[in-house]
Amino acid sequence: MTLGKVIGTIWATRKDDGLVGMKLQIVRPVGLDLQTKEGFFIAVDSVGAGVGEIVLIATGSSARMTEITKNKPVDAVIMAIVDKIDVAD
Amino acid sequence: MTLGKVIGTIWATRKDDGLVGMKLQIVRPVGLDLQTKEGFFIAVDSVGAGVGEIVLIATGSSARMTEITKNKPVDAVIMAIVDKIDVAD
Amino acid sequence: MTLGKVIGTIWATRKDDGLVGMKLQIVRPVGLDLQTKEGFFIAVDSVGAGVGEIVLIATGSSARMTEITKNKPVDAVIMAIVDKIDVAD
Amino acid sequence: MTLGKVIGTIWATRKDDGLVGMKLQIVRPVGLDLQTKEGFFIAVDSVGAGVGEIVLIATGSSARMTEITKNKPVDAVIMAIVDKIDVAD
Amino acid sequence: MTLGKVIGTIWATRKDDGLVGMKLQIVRPVGLDLQTKEGFFIAVDSVGAGVGEIVLIATGSSARMTEITKNKPVDAVIMAIVDKIDVAD
Repeated sequence: MTLGKVIGTIWATRKDDGLVGMKLQIVRPVGLDLQTKEGFFIAVDSVGAGVGEIVLIATGSSARMTEITKNKPVDAVIMAIVDKIDVAD
Repeated sequence: MTLGKVIGTIWATRKDDGLVGMKLQIVRPVGLDLQTKEGFFIAVDSVGAGVGEIVLIATGSSARMTEITKNKPVDAVIMAIVDKIDVAD
Repeated sequence: MTLGKVIGTIWATRKDDGLVGMKLQIVRPVGLDLQTKEGFFIAVDSVGAGVGEIVLIATGSSARMTEITKNKPVDAVIMAIVDKIDVAD
Repeated sequence: MTLGKVIGTIWATRKDDGLVGMKLQIVRPVGLDLQTKEGFFIAVDSVGAGVGEIVLIATGSSARMTEITKNKPVDAVIMAIVDKIDVAD
Repeated sequence: MTLGKVIGTIWATRKDDGLVGMKLQIVRPVGLDLQTKEGFFIAVDSVGAGVGEIVLIATGSSARMTEITKNKPVDAVIMAIVDKIDVAD
């Protein structure tokens, strides 16, 4: 899984029926210092994550293993909101 | 998922039976400013996306979760046409 | 999916039973100008693609969705031979 | 699979029900000399790997093939703790 | 699929039950000239490939499609030993 920060939302009217009701969040990857990095991707929100929150993202077929994404054409899901990061590095 | 812009179409006569009737669109990745970036890939269209439109693409096994791509040998699908992008970054 | 050009063939006698009878083609990625790029990968041919042909390749679990690759340990399949590329870019 | 070193832990209260009870470890990739490299990812621990240990990680759908990750929205799992590396290179 | 050269072996005592009895080989990617390149990954051997041999590797869910890797938490498998490479490039 990767860490990211929610920075916005995508809106689409014409879409696969499986996407109806899903929130499509724009996510930037972040480092362990929580600073955003280059790039972004779109992930379905399954935990009510809002803009500015640090989240955990699962990709690939594993993105379909939450209740709302089951059998849906989505390849990235926000499945946790991060509270704390302990690094011993 | 990633954002892209449809820039063209691929035509193939000799192909797996599962591809018959599918529209194979050429997609360039775009940034949040909707400008195209380097590179391209081919994705099956499931929502009637035409050249010039900004679309959302799912890849991997999730690309087979639309009605027309189910159990087909395709690893990228256009499953939404983007109306609006809200970025709070 | 990606575009590639078949540039050769791999031969293997000691292999998983599932690979018996499959043609293992060496493919180089190509740009929209059909010029080959750096790198290569190996893909199972499902459409009779010969050396020099421009082909469409599906990867990951989707590579197992053709009749000959079903349930086989292969992660890339040639599933179409490209006739024409229309780019409006 | 890839080799990594556990360098910390992620904590999340608001998360998919499937993640309850799972330990989310922060892993840095390592070379064959066991020195850490740039980057990191989050993997579920299935073998009791602690901070500082060198581990083997499986990603993608294969990350769901351990008892604790079955059908869960996780795309990386620590499934072995490395004892010894023999390189003949 | 990719080409690689087996350069060593990983040993692990504490591991997922599904890995018992599997040989975990260290593989470096090779070019068409069979020279090793930067990087390495770990793959389960399904064909008796020894150190120094040039092999074909399948990754992702396809790595679970050999008899010994079925339903196991492994994402890369050596499923052929390469005899010959014909390149017309």
